[in-house]
Amino acid sequence: MPPVSDFTLACPIPISDYPHVLLAHGSGGRLMHDLIARMFAAGFDGLGLDAAHDAAVVPVDGTRLAVTTDSFVVHPLQFPGGDIGSLAVYGTVNDLAMSGAQPRYLSVGFILEEGLPMETLWQIVCSMRDAAERAGVHIVTGDTKVVDKGSGDGCFINTTGLGTLAADRTIAPGAIQPGDAILVSGDLGRHGIAIMATREGLTFESAIESDAAPLHAVVRDLLDDGLDVRCLRDLTRGGLSSALNEIAEASGYELQVDERQIPVREDVRGACEMLGLDPLYVANEGRFVAFVPAAQAERALAVMQAHPVAEGARQIGTVGDDTEGDAVVTLTSSIGVERILDMLSGAQLPRIC
Amino acid sequence: MPPVSDFTLACPIPISDYPHVLLAHGSGGRLMHDLIARMFAAGFDGLGLDAAHDAAVVPVDGTRLAVTTDSFVVHPLQFPGGDIGSLAVYGTVNDLAMSGAQPRYLSVGFILEEGLPMETLWQIVCSMRDAAERAGVHIVTGDTKVVDKGSGDGCFINTTGLGTLAADRTIAPGAIQPGDAILVSGDLGRHGIAIMATREGLTFESAIESDAAPLHAVVRDLLDDGLDVRCLRDLTRGGLSSALNEIAEASGYELQVDERQIPVREDVRGACEMLGLDPLYVANEGRFVAFVPAAQAERALAVMQAHPVAEGARQIGTVGDDTEGDAVVTLTSSIGVERILDMLSGAQLPRIC
Repeated sequence: MPPVSDFTLACPIPISDYPHVLLAHGSGGRLMHDLIARMFAAGFDGLGLDAAHDAAVVPVDGTRLAVTTDSFVVHPLQFPGGDIGSLAVYGTVNDLAMSGAQPRYLSVGFILEEGLPMETLWQIVCSMRDAAERAGVHIVTGDTKVVDKGSGDGCFINTTGLGTLAADRTIAPGAIQPGDAILVSGDLGRHGIAIMATREGLTFESAIESDAAPLHAVVRDLLDDGLDVRCLRDLTRGGLSSALNEIAEASGYELQVDERQIPVREDVRGACEMLGLDPLYVANEGRFVAFVPAAQAERALAVMQAHPVAEGARQIGTVGDDTEGDAVVTLTSSIGVERILDMLSGAQLPRIC
Repeated sequence: MPPVSDFTLACPIPISDYPHVLLAHGSGGRLMHDLIARMFAAGFDGLGLDAAHDAAVVPVDGTRLAVTTDSFVVHPLQFPGGDIGSLAVYGTVNDLAMSGAQPRYLSVGFILEEGLPMETLWQIVCSMRDAAERAGVHIVTGDTKVVDKGSGDGCFINTTGLGTLAADRTIAPGAIQPGDAILVSGDLGRHGIAIMATREGLTFESAIESDAAPLHAVVRDLLDDGLDVRCLRDLTRGGLSSALNEIAEASGYELQVDERQIPVREDVRGACEMLGLDPLYVANEGRFVAFVPAAQAERALAVMQAHPVAEGARQIGTVGDDTEGDAVVTLTSSIGVERILDMLSGAQLPRIC
C-alpha cells in the first residue's frame, strides 16, 4: 500500500479568507464557481474534469457519451409540484439534454438518515419511477447508505446520467456568436418560491408549484428541426443571472438582456418582494436558456412553445461584442436603466435542489 | 405538469415491522438485502434495475458498458491507510473490476457540511487525484452541494463509474458450477478494524492499516491469462459472510468454506476479539473472492499472488450441490465443526465505507 497523497500542493482556496466551507460554496454563485475552478479543476488537473459544462463528453469505442452527476439535498423532501425523487431524475436528465445528448441511463445513490419514515422513502421511490418513465430513462443501478440520526437530513440522492450524442456537433458557450438571440423557455422563479413557501409555512392565494420538469423532448425537437442551437443551459441554483454570467465568462461575449422581456408570474413576483428575493437569482428546475442565430429565433420559439414545458418561451436578449475575457451581462431594467447583472455572491437560497 | 405519483402501490416493506429506516438497512446484511430486493427492485420494476450485481451492464451503440454507483459516508474521514477520497475511488473501481470491466471514467458528487475545514477538503481532493492516477481512471465530471451545519457529517462522496467490457463473457453468480474452487485474495478484516480503532481511539502494538486498494490490475491479469473466471465479488460491507451468502442465493449452489484456510492477521483477530466482532463479517476494501474451475485454482492463485494487493491469496473452499433455491454457506470451523454461515442480520459496523 503506497502512502496516501503527501499533500505537497498548497490548498488553492486561501485558508485565511475561507478556513471553512460555507453554505454559499454550494449555492451556485461566485463562491461555488471559485471552489470548482480553483480546487476541483486544480486537484483533478490532467484527469479531464471539465467544470465548465453541465455534462462531460467522453469517447467510448467511437461513441460519444455524455456523463453528468448531481446530488440532491433539497429541504423539505416534498413540496408543491414535486419531491426530491422527481427532482433527482429531472435535474440529471436536464443536464444531459443541455449538452444535446439523448438521456439513456441513470444510477441512483441514496444516503438515508436513520429514522426516515419508511413510507416517505417509498413515496420518493415511486416518484422517481414515475419521473424516469416520463423522461424515458432507465434506472440501472443503485446504492444505499444509512447514516446515524443527526448526521444527515432524511434523504440525500445522487443521480448520475448517461446519454448518447447523435451528431458531432458542439452545444456549448464556445459556439455562441455575436448577434445570437437569447431565449428563455418560460416564467422564472417558481421552483425556488415553492420550496421557500413550504419551508417558511407561507400560503398564497393560489399554490405556487415547482416548475420541475424534464426538458429532453423540447431539446430534441429543437435539434431535429435543424436549428443551429449554439448553447443551452438549464437555470438551477443561482437562477438566470448565474447561468448567464457563466456563459458570458465561458464565451467571452457580452450578453444583453431586457428585464421587461423576462417572464415572471405576478404571484411569484409578489412572493419574491415579500421574501426580499430577486427572481433573476431564484432557482428553477424546468427552465432553460437557448442561444440561436437571430434569424432563427422565431422558428426556435415556435418549436419551444409547442411543448407544455416551454409554452411561455420568449426572446429576452441578444449576444453583444467580445469583452476580451471579462464576464459581462447587461440588464435593461423595468424602468429602462442599464446595469450590470452580477453573479450571486452569497447564499440566497440554500438547499434548493 | 402532471401530478406526482399517486402512490397506489403499497409500501413493500411492512411498515408495522419497520416504520423507520434503521442503521442496519445500510450495513450490507439481511435488512439491506431486503430493502433492495423488495423496495428498490419493486419500485424500479421494468426500468432495468439489477440489484444482484456490483455493476449493471448496459448496451450503448454496440458497446457493452458497465455502470456502478456508490456513496461513501465513512466516519472518520481519515484513517490509517486511507481516507474517504481514496475509498471513494477504489470502491467504485473495484465494483467495475468485479464485473470484468476495465474501469475508465468516474464522476464525483460531494455533499459537504457547512463548517468542514477547507484544508480537509483539499486533502480529500488530493487523495482522490492520487487514487485515480493509481487506478488509471479519469474523473470527468463533478457536483458540489453544501448542507447546513448539523444536517450532514463533514463530507459524503458519491462516485459513479463507467467501464468497458472487452469480451462477451459473463462474470456473475449464474456462471458458477459445482466443484468450482473459491479463492480469497488476502487476509480479512483490516479495513473495518482500522476504522473502528480510529473511531474508538484504540491503539495496537503495530498500526492496523486499511486494506483499501484498487483491484482492477489483478482482475485484468486473471482474465488475460485465459482463466475461466466464473464470478468475482469484492468484500465490503458485511464482509466475507455477506458476499458468500449473496452469491449462494444468486447461484443456487451450496458454498463450503473452511475457516482454517481463511487468512486473518493475528493482530486483527485480537482486535476483533476485544471488540466482540467476527472477522468474517468485518468490512474490507481491497479484498475479493474469485470462483474458478478446480483444475485452474493453482494457476489463478499464482496470477493473484504476483500482485502486492493479492499476495496472500488462498483457496478457502469449494462450490457444493444445487440447494434448490436456499442460500446455504457451510463453514467448517477452526475446531472442525460444520455450521451454517449466515448473512449479517443487524448492524455490526455502521458507516464503514
